Amino acid sequence: MAMQCSSFKFDLVSTEDHARRGEFHTRHGSVETPVFMPVGTQATVKAVSPDMLKGLGARIILSNTYHLHMRPGEKLIASLGGLHTFMAWNGPILTDSGGYQAFSLAKLMKITDEGLEFSSHLDGSRHFLTPEKAIEIQEDLGADIMMCLDECVAYPSTREYVNASVQRTGLWARRSLAARRGSSALFGIVQGGVYPDLRVRSAHEISSEAFDGIAIGGLSVGEGHDLMMDVLDSTMPHLPQDRPRYLMGVGTPKDIVEAVARGIDMFDCVLPTRNARNGMLFTRKGRITVKQARYRQDPNPPDEDCRCYTCRNFSLAYLRHLYMSREILGSVLSTIHNLYFYLELMSDIRHSIGEKNFDELRKQIKEIYND
Amino acid sequence: MAMQCSSFKFDLVSTEDHARRGEFHTRHGSVETPVFMPVGTQATVKAVSPDMLKGLGARIILSNTYHLHMRPGEKLIASLGGLHTFMAWNGPILTDSGGYQAFSLAKLMKITDEGLEFSSHLDGSRHFLTPEKAIEIQEDLGADIMMCLDECVAYPSTREYVNASVQRTGLWARRSLAARRGSSALFGIVQGGVYPDLRVRSAHEISSEAFDGIAIGGLSVGEGHDLMMDVLDSTMPHLPQDRPRYLMGVGTPKDIVEAVARGIDMFDCVLPTRNARNGMLFTRKGRITVKQARYRQDPNPPDEDCRCYTCRNFSLAYLRHLYMSREILGSVLSTIHNLYFYLELMSDIRHSIGEKNFDELRKQIKEIYND
Repeated sequence: MAMQCSSFKFDLVSTEDHARRGEFHTRHGSVETPVFMPVGTQATVKAVSPDMLKGLGARIILSNTYHLHMRPGEKLIASLGGLHTFMAWNGPILTDSGGYQAFSLAKLMKITDEGLEFSSHLDGSRHFLTPEKAIEIQEDLGADIMMCLDECVAYPSTREYVNASVQRTGLWARRSLAARRGSSALFGIVQGGVYPDLRVRSAHEISSEAFDGIAIGGLSVGEGHDLMMDVLDSTMPHLPQDRPRYLMGVGTPKDIVEAVARGIDMFDCVLPTRNARNGMLFTRKGRITVKQARYRQDPNPPDEDCRCYTCRNFSLAYLRHLYMSREILGSVLSTIHNLYFYLELMSDIRHSIGEKNFDELRKQIKEIYND
Repeated sequence: MAMQCSSFKFDLVSTEDHARRGEFHTRHGSVETPVFMPVGTQATVKAVSPDMLKGLGARIILSNTYHLHMRPGEKLIASLGGLHTFMAWNGPILTDSGGYQAFSLAKLMKITDEGLEFSSHLDGSRHFLTPEKAIEIQEDLGADIMMCLDECVAYPSTREYVNASVQRTGLWARRSLAARRGSSALFGIVQGGVYPDLRVRSAHEISSEAFDGIAIGGLSVGEGHDLMMDVLDSTMPHLPQDRPRYLMGVGTPKDIVEAVARGIDMFDCVLPTRNARNGMLFTRKGRITVKQARYRQDPNPPDEDCRCYTCRNFSLAYLRHLYMSREILGSVLSTIHNLYFYLELMSDIRHSIGEKNFDELRKQIKEIYND
């Protein structure tokens, strides 16, 4: 049978050294890159509503196939008109394959070339995820961009194990492409752990297929910033220029500017949202831990130069009070601020690349976030 | 020393039998009555931001003196510009006296004519609350409307005990008036349990003092709807027409329309916000418990005639998913809906009194909320 083609399209707008400014187009609208995708694991970006997200400048979000497959189930979501209608988000949605959570959250029972057998973290029920099943679920959800099922190996892993997982990931990539029925975009995933030659081989293998974009997976799993950048240095030259590159699950502000400098176009990460709920705020002056006693009477906002709703209206003393009192509004206001920080950072990155000022911005961010 | 006068003013606009439509004026703006005040216990109406509250039509909120005295402390709030600035709410704020929580939440150690000794529910620390101290705290917070410290007796209590508490409440009321230093309004509180003659005596005693409004306290403590209405029937004729009447801590939609029918102008209650977080929604068609399996695939909003953000965008199936997944957004969206329901109900009540249609609305609400 003929493979389906997606309506996905990517335009490169400008570059500065390896950094790229671009735009991709999906069924639910266009997205300028480099872009950060807030994570909406259970069909909600935690603590914020879709209209808040839009107001913050989010243009695309990520949602997790594993979680939605477990609860409430993709068939239920499909019967209600798909994920966009279900969660009232009318912009693009990228879904992962579910594989990562089968490895990291569920109890993994068995992995073979056929697929992954695991038991649910919710009720212990047995599930079997294949490349074809992952595509079927994502098509039921109505994702604009789907991800191939891959094998995400732990760090550290032996060269032998990573070699086998790269082969399996390539096999699954081709089966994923063959399984696509609709017009959703599909990204392949480069694996290879921290072994440069395996990354290069995987990059060539994945890039040779008709994917709409190329993701780099298996990073931000404990290898650290420097090793992550080493992997990018060896991998990026082997990726095609005409398709977006997505660094999965990354990262800190420093990770992001360094990855953009190496040609990455797309990011997702739970850091801004999760840290917000834990009382950690990102600012252009550094991190703030709101529970610290030093903020007890602080009348200043987290960042007086920040234009987010939180910084325009609330003091650190108030945010600390909400955190200490375990008030929901504390999570809401902190999430608003952290997402605004990330989305503004990406906007600044895009504009700096357009004006050839990216290297200056990169230095500034690395000075503030040097750990 | 001369007693201070407040800038508070109340205008009666129209009546329908005993039901009243009016407006009161505070330093932070005017409020049409009958009015419902969302409860912002810890300097936040749980799960919603001040701009959401404004968008929902809230014009005045209540905050709790006991909680803010314990954490973060009224002196800290005063040093940051007062409660309005602290929580970024620029409308009127009514604060209670702290007495009710000293009885219901803290461990009450001793009560004398001097005041209340109790230990904090947070850290067990000892505190002593007097009528003068309650006024001082509320003035530090910058409340637009302050409440007198009163003795809220349990239900049931003996006539002898309630009689003594009415005397003490009257004594404390006069001391509260004498303690006022600024221009905040001050409301007296009628007590008397479920004993009509004690309520009448308390009503006369409190009404004879220069309070800006009269509250009815000590109800909604387990006596039930019918007995609550009996108490109002015996008390209301003895309250002055020219000042607002506030039924503290009440109530259900039925309680509210029945109390409005008896001449009550102001309400506060945690029901809409607390029930929202517990997955219970109020609608014009009755209550909805979102976790029920019947809503699993329900594509309809909680109330298709409701114009709130939640009902305009989300299905019961989605709200159920958020509830089952314990997502913060579930609390946010449910709180938005329930507050909208309460605030719209009050708006409809006000308009119906203006057009002499209140009795019809009262019947409708009682048909739906007849329990």
